[in-house]
Amino acid sequence: MIILGIDPGLNNTGYGLVEIQKNKIRAIAYGGIVNSIDDNLSEKVKNIHSEINTLIKKYAPHDLVLEEIFFSKNTRSALNVGKVVGALALTASLLEINFFVYTPLQVKQAVVGYGRASKNQVQEMVKVLLSLSKKPEYEHAADALAVAICHIHHKYSY
Amino acid sequence: MIILGIDPGLNNTGYGLVEIQKNKIRAIAYGGIVNSIDDNLSEKVKNIHSEINTLIKKYAPHDLVLEEIFFSKNTRSALNVGKVVGALALTASLLEINFFVYTPLQVKQAVVGYGRASKNQVQEMVKVLLSLSKKPEYEHAADALAVAICHIHHKYSY
Repeated sequence: MIILGIDPGLNNTGYGLVEIQKNKIRAIAYGGIVNSIDDNLSEKVKNIHSEINTLIKKYAPHDLVLEEIFFSKNTRSALNVGKVVGALALTASLLEINFFVYTPLQVKQAVVGYGRASKNQVQEMVKVLLSLSKKPEYEHAADALAVAICHIHHKYSY
Repeated sequence: MIILGIDPGLNNTGYGLVEIQKNKIRAIAYGGIVNSIDDNLSEKVKNIHSEINTLIKKYAPHDLVLEEIFFSKNTRSALNVGKVVGALALTASLLEINFFVYTPLQVKQAVVGYGRASKNQVQEMVKVLLSLSKKPEYEHAADALAVAICHIHHKYSY
């Protein structure tokens, strides 16, 4: 079974595909979707939708899972994250794929075992849990892999 | 030319279709898309997408326009409005329809001529400008008609 984790952002969206195999989990693919700052909202969400669509067609993940920020430093950034979350929720329902959302607290607890873990600790644990030779260079990809791992811990035993 | 105005909300989305004809504008249809509070995000945005899709197929509007809140009392509600805005931006791009966003200030200035107008003043002016016999009962429909009028003022002369 394959899980597609996403760290949503209008300009930088990370993705990570994790597979559960017998007693192990492994990363299949991870990376980022980078939008031009000059593109308008409609172009940005269309590009994210289209890239995610391609990943879903290629890897046929069972679930699409997001990390969502519930409280943000400012309203503007909350609005912007919300836009990507809404577009991805629609993408999931149009492609009839299950859609789940976790809080940063849940992700940290699942990956590091400690809700106030640092970003760096989460990324180190992602590397260890998935036996990667090094941390993903694209930071949002590591966060996307983390939410996929979190989902597996919550929903599937392996 | 027909404009589809939308007042976005996860549980209550208003819509209003306004037509420009010679020297007049008139309302063609308006109403609301009400979601069950119990539905999850994916179901809510799918339902809004599907209803807007039906309106676009039926009335073939030239532009889809939204009123978007840029600053909100709380982050949570900003996130929720953002989700609908993102889903609608994706809907517009998938259906290849132009997408525009206005602030509440722009809408008030266009409809009432005064950026700090009250909600009630906006709704009264919508009634007058579109020669409606009474204010739309569904409040969000009046706001959706207002943003459609605002767009016409900004982009088209009539």
